[in-house]
Amino acid sequence: MQADTLIHRCLTLARFTEETGHITRTFLSPPMREVHREVTRWMQEAGMAVRVDAAGNIRGVYGRGPRLMIGSHLDTVPHAGPFDGILGVMMGIALVEEKPPFAVEVVGFSEEEGVRFRVPFIGSRALVGDPVMDDSVLQAIRDFELDPAELPKAAVARDVKGYLEFHIEQGPVLDQKNLPIGVVEAIVGQSRAEIQFQGKAGHAGTTPMTSRCDALAAAAEGIGVVERTALEEGVVATVGRLEVQPGAVNVIPGLALASLDVRHKNAKKIDKTMGMLQTSAEEIAKRRGVTGWWELRSSQPPAEMNRLMTNVLAAAVKSAGHQPFRLSSGAGHDAMILARKVPAAMLFLRSPGGVSHHPAETVDEYVVNAALAAGRKFLETWRPV
Amino acid sequence: MQADTLIHRCLTLARFTEETGHITRTFLSPPMREVHREVTRWMQEAGMAVRVDAAGNIRGVYGRGPRLMIGSHLDTVPHAGPFDGILGVMMGIALVEEKPPFAVEVVGFSEEEGVRFRVPFIGSRALVGDPVMDDSVLQAIRDFELDPAELPKAAVARDVKGYLEFHIEQGPVLDQKNLPIGVVEAIVGQSRAEIQFQGKAGHAGTTPMTSRCDALAAAAEGIGVVERTALEEGVVATVGRLEVQPGAVNVIPGLALASLDVRHKNAKKIDKTMGMLQTSAEEIAKRRGVTGWWELRSSQPPAEMNRLMTNVLAAAVKSAGHQPFRLSSGAGHDAMILARKVPAAMLFLRSPGGVSHHPAETVDEYVVNAALAAGRKFLETWRPV
Repeated sequence: MQADTLIHRCLTLARFTEETGHITRTFLSPPMREVHREVTRWMQEAGMAVRVDAAGNIRGVYGRGPRLMIGSHLDTVPHAGPFDGILGVMMGIALVEEKPPFAVEVVGFSEEEGVRFRVPFIGSRALVGDPVMDDSVLQAIRDFELDPAELPKAAVARDVKGYLEFHIEQGPVLDQKNLPIGVVEAIVGQSRAEIQFQGKAGHAGTTPMTSRCDALAAAAEGIGVVERTALEEGVVATVGRLEVQPGAVNVIPGLALASLDVRHKNAKKIDKTMGMLQTSAEEIAKRRGVTGWWELRSSQPPAEMNRLMTNVLAAAVKSAGHQPFRLSSGAGHDAMILARKVPAAMLFLRSPGGVSHHPAETVDEYVVNAALAAGRKFLETWRPV
Repeated sequence: MQADTLIHRCLTLARFTEETGHITRTFLSPPMREVHREVTRWMQEAGMAVRVDAAGNIRGVYGRGPRLMIGSHLDTVPHAGPFDGILGVMMGIALVEEKPPFAVEVVGFSEEEGVRFRVPFIGSRALVGDPVMDDSVLQAIRDFELDPAELPKAAVARDVKGYLEFHIEQGPVLDQKNLPIGVVEAIVGQSRAEIQFQGKAGHAGTTPMTSRCDALAAAAEGIGVVERTALEEGVVATVGRLEVQPGAVNVIPGLALASLDVRHKNAKKIDKTMGMLQTSAEEIAKRRGVTGWWELRSSQPPAEMNRLMTNVLAAAVKSAGHQPFRLSSGAGHDAMILARKVPAAMLFLRSPGGVSHHPAETVDEYVVNAALAAGRKFLETWRPV
């Protein structure tokens, strides 16, 4: 398969969305059924036996015996681009179409972004024996006509000897260095929390400024602290969601609910920053007479890729005619979950402008062909032992 | 009618809501039909001829010839209490039941809070020949099976010689002074704006802090400025609504849309504050590389109540056995709109704890009986000439 066909497949899947005019496809949402239908067809055409596991991951197996797993995710953020995650699944299918010399399992994870239930990696966590067991997640599984009791069967088979993920970089490094592809050495850790400020709703005209318990004013102050602390500590920190209630022009907000996402390659740095921000949120709440409430929602330590497999991948990049540049990933990926159980390696494809999680996200044909060439070389050298 | 019956009527109407478990009833929303059904029955029992005008105001006329209008609004903020607005309409019906010595028109305004279309006073503006003509409002009128072409007929008749409004204070003044009722001398002016920050959505893990165009971070800084400026200038200023897009944990917000509400009894003070906040929003946007956009949505100048009518009301309060305490209103009211066309007066009823725009909003029976007594005395003295 050439890059143009592969890119066309990504654009085809982009049509299956929860929001007309945008690409929005969360965990086990209705359009995921249409994605499974298309992916099943492509996998079968490539000679794979296909199933959907109890976590909603679609899994195609080519051949028998010890094997390589190639995967990425099929869900998206709201108002996404067409390539984040999806491209990696299409890369796996494209490489299998060329009849690799050993068995390969391609997996399209059901969930990586953490949008629907604010818990990421629902798909890949099922493969490493750590499935997400929240009631809401289990109910969504049942609603998709899957059986949570079957979750243990989603775990990776002993025959899986390595995990390889292709993914757009979603950052500016390869673009700035004018390189098509790069070998990932490590994935930064990330912690996520939900912070709630409960103040007191009141009339916007008759409540003096000095006697307000404004939940949004508290959250706004907190967001300023997040930004300054991130700059000082050298981490990246983001408040991506903020809900305000009751949300009327003339009512002082009684409730503000914010998300927090902190990332760094050093786990201690993340923990220190989260601690500082929690202390700060509590101080803000106390000073303003509102109730502050902090819940850690997830904590992924930084993950190193397997050294041996990464070396094979770097050599493959080189023998495909490209510089075997190594870099860290600022984003979390399924590879860091799989790395808990099997050797894992990861190849980044250049994101023009570093743009991702945005409709303008794209990928060049030249870059996809470079990644396909490196993938072919990898399959020539590596062996599932 | 005694206070307990009147309060019970307010609680009856509170059952008609857009959100089960909360009182939320916006302009021409479905539950407004059920409110009209009940109010029509009560008005007819009191001897009134009832119609719904093209702006959705329900209007009952008792008697013929020159008349007093008594009114308030039947819409609510989201998650409201049962008395804001509603109580004033019930007061009008209760006074008409006692057969006043001249004609009285009771009006239940369809809209005062500005929730559904972010423009307040849709109901009362139709009565002063200044109807809101936004396409969305006209469509809502048609959807309620009313005819926008009939809006001119909603204007107050020449026979209307004065407007009287009863309303809970929604502030702490009467409660702190331990007075049941107070005579409103003036209503503060208020300006409202929508402020939009358009940044650039991006990946929360791979975009360095120094190269972000975070719309929410810009809005959060702006909210801090609103709070500080209000304290410095002695106005009240509120950001009650804030919408963030795309609104995912791991995406830098690309868009933040905030409401602003500024109030003071001096129009120049309001204009000065709005100017300062607009300049500040533009500076924040420019410095952060986001696009700032400011739209003034409404601007109500402060309104003085009619001096003669207010004196009659104060005398009525006194002869009902209460102190004729005078105060300003920190909230906007339909009376300030009607004051453009007819002499207007207003009586406040004590709000325990100053609580309003909140489910805990309440009113004491003793206070309602005091207001009914003052209303009776007013109808004995004032004449529609």
